[in-house]
Amino acid sequence: MSQFDNVSIIKKANIYFDGKVSSRTVQFADGTHKTLGLMAEGDYTFSTEAAELMEILAGHVEVKLAGQENWQTVVGGESFNVDANSSFDIKVTGIADYCCSYL
Amino acid sequence: MSQFDNVSIIKKANIYFDGKVSSRTVQFADGTHKTLGLMAEGDYTFSTEAAELMEILAGHVEVKLAGQENWQTVVGGESFNVDANSSFDIKVTGIADYCCSYL
Repeated sequence: MSQFDNVSIIKKANIYFDGKVSSRTVQFADGTHKTLGLMAEGDYTFSTEAAELMEILAGHVEVKLAGQENWQTVVGGESFNVDANSSFDIKVTGIADYCCSYL
Repeated sequence: MSQFDNVSIIKKANIYFDGKVSSRTVQFADGTHKTLGLMAEGDYTFSTEAAELMEILAGHVEVKLAGQENWQTVVGGESFNVDANSSFDIKVTGIADYCCSYL
């Protein structure tokens, strides 16, 4: 699915890490929301409240979930899940375009 | 208006200048579209096909329209218009969050 239909989008951007990570919030009729975002090259740690599904739309990242030792490679078209009230480390090569769903 | 309702959003980001400028395309029921984007600090030149209304949602930019000598300061909440088939130079301080309407 290349687009989301019948949604609302919050105009103001969400900006993190001095703009190296940014996103827009998309709200769905069923009350759920997702963010469409971009990560510049770099290493970041994100914490979660709700569980998350992170879909990498384009790009190449390495991810290490909280409590795990190993890094997993995730590229465009692939995704990873993060538990609620947890965190993940992520290393971005180039630019990563992502969609985050809050489960 | 802080959000757009009943729209479609293209998931894939539009990326320019090695990611220093990026945007998402929002499509409206009436067939028009806008882009919601971010510009990192820097100097850029953009060309237009359709005429454009550039709303600066947040940030501080200096703009010089094609054929003009003077730079104009545009800050969050303000906007500027660009003719069709023209161009503009823009100097961004910090991060600029914008909405571009294609007229």
